[in-house]
Amino acid sequence: MRYVVIMAGGSGTRFWPASRRARPKQFLSIGSERSLLAETAARLEGVVPLEHLYVVTGAAHADHARDDLVGVPPENVLVEPTGRNTAPCIGWATRHILAKDRDARIAVLPADHFIRDTARFAAYLDAAFEAATDRIVLFGIIPDRPETGYGYIRQGEARGDSRGEPVHAVDRFVEKPDAATAEKYLAEGGYLWNAGMFVFPARVMDEEITAHVPELAKGLDALEADPGAIYTIYPTLVKAPIDTAVMEPSSRTLVMPAEFGWSDVGSWDAAKDVYEADADGNVALGDVLLEGVKNGFVDARAGRKIAVVGLDDIVVVDTPDALLVMKRGQSQDVKKVVARLEKNEEKDLL
Amino acid sequence: MRYVVIMAGGSGTRFWPASRRARPKQFLSIGSERSLLAETAARLEGVVPLEHLYVVTGAAHADHARDDLVGVPPENVLVEPTGRNTAPCIGWATRHILAKDRDARIAVLPADHFIRDTARFAAYLDAAFEAATDRIVLFGIIPDRPETGYGYIRQGEARGDSRGEPVHAVDRFVEKPDAATAEKYLAEGGYLWNAGMFVFPARVMDEEITAHVPELAKGLDALEADPGAIYTIYPTLVKAPIDTAVMEPSSRTLVMPAEFGWSDVGSWDAAKDVYEADADGNVALGDVLLEGVKNGFVDARAGRKIAVVGLDDIVVVDTPDALLVMKRGQSQDVKKVVARLEKNEEKDLL
Repeated sequence: MRYVVIMAGGSGTRFWPASRRARPKQFLSIGSERSLLAETAARLEGVVPLEHLYVVTGAAHADHARDDLVGVPPENVLVEPTGRNTAPCIGWATRHILAKDRDARIAVLPADHFIRDTARFAAYLDAAFEAATDRIVLFGIIPDRPETGYGYIRQGEARGDSRGEPVHAVDRFVEKPDAATAEKYLAEGGYLWNAGMFVFPARVMDEEITAHVPELAKGLDALEADPGAIYTIYPTLVKAPIDTAVMEPSSRTLVMPAEFGWSDVGSWDAAKDVYEADADGNVALGDVLLEGVKNGFVDARAGRKIAVVGLDDIVVVDTPDALLVMKRGQSQDVKKVVARLEKNEEKDLL
Repeated sequence: MRYVVIMAGGSGTRFWPASRRARPKQFLSIGSERSLLAETAARLEGVVPLEHLYVVTGAAHADHARDDLVGVPPENVLVEPTGRNTAPCIGWATRHILAKDRDARIAVLPADHFIRDTARFAAYLDAAFEAATDRIVLFGIIPDRPETGYGYIRQGEARGDSRGEPVHAVDRFVEKPDAATAEKYLAEGGYLWNAGMFVFPARVMDEEITAHVPELAKGLDALEADPGAIYTIYPTLVKAPIDTAVMEPSSRTLVMPAEFGWSDVGSWDAAKDVYEADADGNVALGDVLLEGVKNGFVDARAGRKIAVVGLDDIVVVDTPDALLVMKRGQSQDVKKVVARLEKNEEKDLL
């Protein structure tokens, strides 16, 4: 049977003031009326039944996740006592599902990405489930620009196809490149963005964790033997990302090149790009009045009127208690704002 | 005795979103905790008693004016049934005061200007009252820049001094100049800004109105004979500005060169200039966080946090229901915003 594990542990600060500790990015509505998390679940329709959908998140966000996931059994929201990066999270969820279904195939999906072409995504996901008979099948997004913000997967030799979609061996994983290297990757071809989405037989993931992160496997054994001890055991699990801990050392990975209008929506600049801009390149959400503005992103969904006059490349994001006005391209400095709020202990705004 | 008439009939749109039909500029706090109107009254302390202070305003703003003018007798707020420009307004207020005090001297002051140096202003006002024995004494602000936004008064021959301040004949009134002419005026000297502030014996103003705008004088006669008919008579009064209707044709004017940190605060750009900027040239009011910002003006007094990132020359003005984000120097385009709100009949925001 097919299962999906949505990883909703994010606590990013790059979407301040819309994102807060209590409402990280996966709960924001970017590119849709619904939250990114709700969209992540909604686009599984027809591929995986809702009762096979699991979400891993922190205690602070569990209720919010349940609210956003109508139709998903509340007990499928798995609450991590503390974040230990993705390897323990995926290992734990895999054990959870394995206990019910030894033949489970699981797709792991981030909760906070945007996908424009839902139908194509569903077709790719279906193909990846089919392909994942005894391998971990990663999606590799076919690049359309020399992006320096993502890690890449270099595809290896062809390994047939699944439902018409080619599947390749993984030649190697590549760290985020510099601009020149990214240009080279794009020109050369065969380099795919690592979107952090993959499908695997539960048993294979469990075996690969045992093979490559045996300490984690032992921790998961202890947890399985005494689930009530989660608050003492979970915080001791090996803290490691699945990519370096399992995917890179594993010889059982495949990559499926894919394109379905994916964005990891890493910043306000990226958020603008998931919307259709008007003739002046502007994206205006809510009650906005623009006068002499080009390539602006104005989010007035908090309800107040926002008038912008004579500014190009402006980003304005309003919320009931805080407002961000930023030059496009300065997204990374939002972190500085949040750092200053933290330093000033402005907890109401964090 | 000395009297002051504050002209508070303004209904400007240049300070949207802070200014609205119900709260024009004179009720805004710019450069001070108090409103411009309240500051205008407050800086008369020691020069004119509060019970000799009159305010002319529209019906929509009379209560607001009374609220702002603690200590001023409520009946001293004179309510125009409709705006007819400054000549009828001043003529009417002058008659009002003349009826009580045939020897009154009156200073006319706009309600919506900023004056940095209150003590110097008080000294100048005192000197102007002294000088206004049988003339209309205008303040001529000594320019510190080649301003094209004001009309000028060219001073004529010296006519002695009052309390040490020189007084001159008025050579002529000059319309708002172009940039080159303004430069010439500044270099040449003797050209003063017409700030719309003047002191006169009530009797002299009344005589000059009779001499130069006889139709207005007749209207004022009718109004004086039947004050209850104000709603029918006032709207028929000659609609004219005092400058062209009385000051320019009159031979009974003098000008007193003055400097006391005056600004007519004609726009958000000008509003910034009445505040002390920080080392980066920024003026931040309220709860503001700036990151990589120079020469900004951010008004967060509506209470929400405003964070601005990576933008120079930015103007941000927040209110509970509307927000303006503007490039400095684009103040004139605020009118376009208001025009569009009017066209859309967004009455709540006007």
